[in-house]
Amino acid sequence: MPKKSKKPRVVIALGGNALQKNGEVTAEAQKSVANHVGALIAKLSEKYEIVLAHGNGPQVGNILIHEEQAASEKAPAMPLETAVAMSQGQIGYWLAQSIDNAFAKVGKKKKVATVVTQVEVSKSDPAFKNPSKPVGAFYSESEAKKLAKEKGWIVKEDAGRGWRRVVPSPKPKSIVESKEILSLVKSGVIVVAAGGGGVPVYRTRVLKLLKGVDAVIDKDFAAEKLAELLKADIFLSVTAVDFAYLNFGTPAAQPLKHLTVNEAEYYSRQGFFKAGSMLPKITAATEFAKLGKTGVICSLDNLESALRFKSGTIIVK
Amino acid sequence: MPKKSKKPRVVIALGGNALQKNGEVTAEAQKSVANHVGALIAKLSEKYEIVLAHGNGPQVGNILIHEEQAASEKAPAMPLETAVAMSQGQIGYWLAQSIDNAFAKVGKKKKVATVVTQVEVSKSDPAFKNPSKPVGAFYSESEAKKLAKEKGWIVKEDAGRGWRRVVPSPKPKSIVESKEILSLVKSGVIVVAAGGGGVPVYRTRVLKLLKGVDAVIDKDFAAEKLAELLKADIFLSVTAVDFAYLNFGTPAAQPLKHLTVNEAEYYSRQGFFKAGSMLPKITAATEFAKLGKTGVICSLDNLESALRFKSGTIIVK
Repeated sequence: MPKKSKKPRVVIALGGNALQKNGEVTAEAQKSVANHVGALIAKLSEKYEIVLAHGNGPQVGNILIHEEQAASEKAPAMPLETAVAMSQGQIGYWLAQSIDNAFAKVGKKKKVATVVTQVEVSKSDPAFKNPSKPVGAFYSESEAKKLAKEKGWIVKEDAGRGWRRVVPSPKPKSIVESKEILSLVKSGVIVVAAGGGGVPVYRTRVLKLLKGVDAVIDKDFAAEKLAELLKADIFLSVTAVDFAYLNFGTPAAQPLKHLTVNEAEYYSRQGFFKAGSMLPKITAATEFAKLGKTGVICSLDNLESALRFKSGTIIVK
Repeated sequence: MPKKSKKPRVVIALGGNALQKNGEVTAEAQKSVANHVGALIAKLSEKYEIVLAHGNGPQVGNILIHEEQAASEKAPAMPLETAVAMSQGQIGYWLAQSIDNAFAKVGKKKKVATVVTQVEVSKSDPAFKNPSKPVGAFYSESEAKKLAKEKGWIVKEDAGRGWRRVVPSPKPKSIVESKEILSLVKSGVIVVAAGGGGVPVYRTRVLKLLKGVDAVIDKDFAAEKLAELLKADIFLSVTAVDFAYLNFGTPAAQPLKHLTVNEAEYYSRQGFFKAGSMLPKITAATEFAKLGKTGVICSLDNLESALRFKSGTIIVK
């Protein structure tokens, strides 16, 4: 039977890069960073119901690189949507194990589980007309164009670093497994979910069947949608800096401690936040704040005080 | 709140090869087979609580081949235990989506979720002294011996087909996520779990920390252990044949329809069942029958009648 809990419910979105310290990408190094995250989450779970979403950029990138380079007829490459599911298994395993171990260290036992999560998008999302998110390996122009022809990829030059496949980044409409995740949360389970923004799927028009689609969903948007569906109290996006800033990276940089929805939207429109970096976090936290709840952006170090609204950028209606 | 259910609880173990028809290994082909499985599971879930475990042999094999062949310093190969977690994400996604779609086709909505599952083994399991299970790519003798030196692998010649890495296949002691899975089952969720026999982990001696270990756990043994912990009524192993046989593959072949635990153990000792094939299924079903429950071995086609004990090999105490 589920325990009644009065703890605030929090969905935390953790960057995919947050699992890599000093650019170390071995499983060993990433597990060691996951252990640090696990210890924090375990401690916070005494006071909060927690769902942990996470990015998967570097991890799914490496899966794609391996798949693309070593694919053969006998061992064909998996499509991007399936590769996202693979990265959910990989990172979810590391995080769940780390959280379990953080409890074991203090002689406690806490329930934690990773749920493979599909995130529904709309096939009419404008992103499908303008694939913009680079994924997988870098290629020379001629290789890239050959692959584009062979596999139906769209390829683009990526900031002077070479040519890459680009895929759409549609908005999440719904989380397929939200009810199952809610059921676990209500039973006192810490849930790792919506990894990498979720496996992108859409429902076919007539039969409403789920179908995977090669795309990537922003993990902050997916986590915010999950927070909505779980009726969470707080949506928190963990990033590399302690606050969102005005004039970030300049001498005039100014940390934003408290923002209303209107202020956040104003600064966003004014272009203060970098696309693909701080902007999606601000957008997600602002969307959540519109529901009368609290959106938070902070660093891993300040996670605990940010949840008490003593640190980080706090966005409210 | 969980629904009270009087449905019999069943753990079904599905072979990893069961997702590949005519040796077709593309994602498309495997998803199409998963759809067939999903339709069966959806139908059965009207009468049974279902947990679906599955193998991952061909899938994790291809992940390892890609990882080994394309590994670099920037994109290093993941260890076997992490590759198992990746395959759980991959196959679990396909199966959960297929089950969801089978309900969508008849205008229904049913809860289904894939839980990434760690399976605990003992570090003193004798299997660790005798690694016997071949995994990953085939190599020439000299390549294999070089890799063995570089990576600390144990390599063996595999039935005239080349050299391969061999890993231990220890017995499952416990399922780390069994309580979380039980909580979902009690809430009316069809759960995909313990994929590929589970991510093999052990607990360290003093701190009792979970630690992944490069090994593979037999999926029938893992599924049977899960069936025990979930207090399931039936453990069912799906295989390519309708029954276990005496003198299989000879003119004297005789299907075994009903067996007592004693009979099953007698035939096993007499060597009637092939190691790594029918023997683990019989062993797992027999272990489960010893608890006063029912162990079943059948083909996918006979799944429904086998659950009513009208087909397949039925083992009872």
